[in-house]
Amino acid sequence: MSTARVVRRVAVFGGTHGNEMSGVYLVKRWLQNQEAITRPSFLTVPCIANPRAVERCRRYIDVDLNRQFTQEHFSMDFPPSTAPYEVHRAVELNKKFGAKGEAFDVIIDLHNTTSNMGNCLIIGSSMDSFTLQMVKYLVQRSGLVCPVFLTENTVPQLEMADSKRLGVHGISLELGAQPQGVLLADIYLRHERLVHTCLDFIHKFNQGEVFPPETLEVYRILHVVDYPRNNDNDLSAMVHPELQDKDWHPLKPGDPMFLTLDGETIKYEGDSTVYPAFINEAAYYEKGIAFWATQKETLNVTELQVKTK
Amino acid sequence: MSTARVVRRVAVFGGTHGNEMSGVYLVKRWLQNQEAITRPSFLTVPCIANPRAVERCRRYIDVDLNRQFTQEHFSMDFPPSTAPYEVHRAVELNKKFGAKGEAFDVIIDLHNTTSNMGNCLIIGSSMDSFTLQMVKYLVQRSGLVCPVFLTENTVPQLEMADSKRLGVHGISLELGAQPQGVLLADIYLRHERLVHTCLDFIHKFNQGEVFPPETLEVYRILHVVDYPRNNDNDLSAMVHPELQDKDWHPLKPGDPMFLTLDGETIKYEGDSTVYPAFINEAAYYEKGIAFWATQKETLNVTELQVKTK
Repeated sequence: MSTARVVRRVAVFGGTHGNEMSGVYLVKRWLQNQEAITRPSFLTVPCIANPRAVERCRRYIDVDLNRQFTQEHFSMDFPPSTAPYEVHRAVELNKKFGAKGEAFDVIIDLHNTTSNMGNCLIIGSSMDSFTLQMVKYLVQRSGLVCPVFLTENTVPQLEMADSKRLGVHGISLELGAQPQGVLLADIYLRHERLVHTCLDFIHKFNQGEVFPPETLEVYRILHVVDYPRNNDNDLSAMVHPELQDKDWHPLKPGDPMFLTLDGETIKYEGDSTVYPAFINEAAYYEKGIAFWATQKETLNVTELQVKTK
Repeated sequence: MSTARVVRRVAVFGGTHGNEMSGVYLVKRWLQNQEAITRPSFLTVPCIANPRAVERCRRYIDVDLNRQFTQEHFSMDFPPSTAPYEVHRAVELNKKFGAKGEAFDVIIDLHNTTSNMGNCLIIGSSMDSFTLQMVKYLVQRSGLVCPVFLTENTVPQLEMADSKRLGVHGISLELGAQPQGVLLADIYLRHERLVHTCLDFIHKFNQGEVFPPETLEVYRILHVVDYPRNNDNDLSAMVHPELQDKDWHPLKPGDPMFLTLDGETIKYEGDSTVYPAFINEAAYYEKGIAFWATQKETLNVTELQVKTK
């Protein structure tokens, strides 16, 4: 049996990336009218995380905000005036929602991807029973198929430093495929449903409901695979049509992986089957990521109840 | 019987919009190796139309290049130094490809859209037999389903001033759905096939082949339909899930058209059936366009042969 503290404050972020539109529009709507995200046992605060990027419908102004939630930035009271806009913003968000502020219990961060990821739930730890039980609740009760992406830090260079680290618990709801700068009603409605289901879980938890032990299937991050590139570091191949949109499907040794601009197939030559995610995400060209290789595993989720005194 | 002059010079543009990736990568490849686009009877010149926007993977730097091909800019030798980058670029392109330069016979401009437009062929006139016969050839011989979008100027405010006006004849190959900043192999291959088919047509035309009279089904532009907006000019509704991806399908009075952010359906209340195109194109949010209403009509295409002497 695990216990966790009662949840007093929940933040729902949209526009951490300013051109991921369903989170932007949901949060804008909730800022006008909070009724739909209000639950009796805790406070819910909607927030446009990167307002300047939202205004310009761009992913970011200077640097990716969702990699600025570092210990270094958390320790700052005031960044140097020459620091990138998003560093200033990470420090501000920490002063409002993080350890230097009201120390919110849960951060729910709404994202979109151009990859065919479906209703992906991203979590950063396999050890946080509260978040795991919330994820299991989403899987069982949202009525949506929800692949779970575990970004637990097995290799240091994959350090995420994302918004989830602001809160005690955190989850990203990463829905796709949706082009940058486009609002798809279907994705907006699924994003809305997932947030409501998270809030319902939290309220039940606060009320003392016991969540029994469970198992949870997750895709754990292994490593990134980049596009083949030429001497100018430009792409010399594309995601192969047989791999495109096949996020979460097994990629076996010998399967087609890339197609060169001249039409030649490049096969996957790894030793074992992997499960690609974030295949052909627009924002990852500059990061050197054609997809993330993951492995499938089953986590044990311990029984959970709210801590009483 | 119509005649047209023999074709001496053809330009293939990619990156008129810097984040429309299949044209960008095809043209980059052809700049390295022109063999695939070489035909014996004419010169083919590939060109990255907006190189700075391509470098930054943005639609444009200052203004939409594809609306700068105006008579005013065509008359300029040197724009004011304070003019937007794309005005400078339109003047440069005119000096190379247009009337102030080598007066290219055909401009083929490669575009992508986030809308589900398929292999859309865009033409600006119902009077140019050469272009109509080339389009008919694409429809019949490319092996691809190709809806034809006719932007002929029935209402002055829809003045396009696009790249096609640089050449004597011109066509845009507008393929989708593809997110901005993403290269989809499937679309890249279809774009390549359409360009090859255009070049094959032109070579046959130059060789004296007679193209018989034909009819051609086109979607002629009627007017634009904007999103419902609030007092801040921000969207208050999205494209309805039943309309999303239904480019070229009939939209009948009473059909669902938008879904408000609060979940209410807004129906189409026009008097007659229209055929929407460019539904939910990312770049058109700022232009105030949710989709373009078109009507279906059949053009007569006159017999065509190259002019001798």
